Amino acid sequence: MELLKNRIVEQGKIIGDDIVKVDMFLNHQLDVALLEEMGKEIYRLFSDRGINKILTIETSGIAIACMAAQQFRVPVVFARKVKSRNISEDVYTAEVYSFTKNITYPIRVSQEYLNADDNLLIIDDFLANGKAVCGLLEIAEQSGAKVSGVCAAIEKGFQSGGRELREKGVPLKSLAIVDAICDGKITFRDEDC
Amino acid sequence: MELLKNRIVEQGKIIGDDIVKVDMFLNHQLDVALLEEMGKEIYRLFSDRGINKILTIETSGIAIACMAAQQFRVPVVFARKVKSRNISEDVYTAEVYSFTKNITYPIRVSQEYLNADDNLLIIDDFLANGKAVCGLLEIAEQSGAKVSGVCAAIEKGFQSGGRELREKGVPLKSLAIVDAICDGKITFRDEDC
Repeated sequence: MELLKNRIVEQGKIIGDDIVKVDMFLNHQLDVALLEEMGKEIYRLFSDRGINKILTIETSGIAIACMAAQQFRVPVVFARKVKSRNISEDVYTAEVYSFTKNITYPIRVSQEYLNADDNLLIIDDFLANGKAVCGLLEIAEQSGAKVSGVCAAIEKGFQSGGRELREKGVPLKSLAIVDAICDGKITFRDEDC
Repeated sequence: MELLKNRIVEQGKIIGDDIVKVDMFLNHQLDVALLEEMGKEIYRLFSDRGINKILTIETSGIAIACMAAQQFRVPVVFARKVKSRNISEDVYTAEVYSFTKNITYPIRVSQEYLNADDNLLIIDDFLANGKAVCGLLEIAEQSGAKVSGVCAAIEKGFQSGGRELREKGVPLKSLAIVDAICDGKITFRDEDC
């Protein structure tokens, strides 16, 4: 998505050779006009899949998921990152390892809001090692829901998550794939995602 | 807002005499069609205030803030709830006490995204004791920004936050004010908010 790639180049903050911060428009301040266009692009990519619900994870996935949901006219369910590992019978749960924070945290979705009749699109802001998406896929599997699409706004193509998911047959498309960050310059993957 | 009040009655889960859970449409699953209408109502209430930015707090404020921002055509900034109290010079910060969790946690906004030229609308999902809104007002004050409106989706009128804020002259309007929960029945405040 050219609009997003341009914005990443213009307003992303590059730290070292592997971090691009997009707090200016996606992770702290939200440019809602840009997010609307991202929602439309996600609809263009996945509108033929019969999606009836969007699954995301707090915090930064929520805004993008809502904008896409406006196009699909479906509800959003967001997984909560929780502190306690207390067993509760009415939730689906998975463990997610965060490389950034070097911690494993549980995520949860109430069983009330996902079930075997659902046909899901999973949306998240960043895809790097893919652990958050794997957690969401695990939760979907527990619920019996079908996953007909996975969409990351920004995929770090130089980390392994995207490749591993595609190799497993997960229907992943990313709006922008950053293939390399070198000397402060970002290279995007050319292919049409 | 009748649409929201009706939805609270139909889908809210009442626990005891002081809790109404709205996970079905606002706090876990998000009914984006309803949120859009809430965004339009917030615009109707505050459109004459010259708002140039919406300030909210993660997690559940984000979706409502985005829907309102679509109407105002302004960006959203969301305060982050952070764990560490490490001093950082480039953030505004405040402490928020949560009665539900009985903890005080710091919230933060990068100085980059708020300044004295801003004219803010503060939005949150619930207003009970008003501590989150007070934290956001404190952050706004640190930045020098003007606050021209505060909007809660659901105010618990039987707790003191709303009254205290109004007595201080804070321009607060809530979309639905729950005045009492008694024997599983919700009474809303009649006045037009």
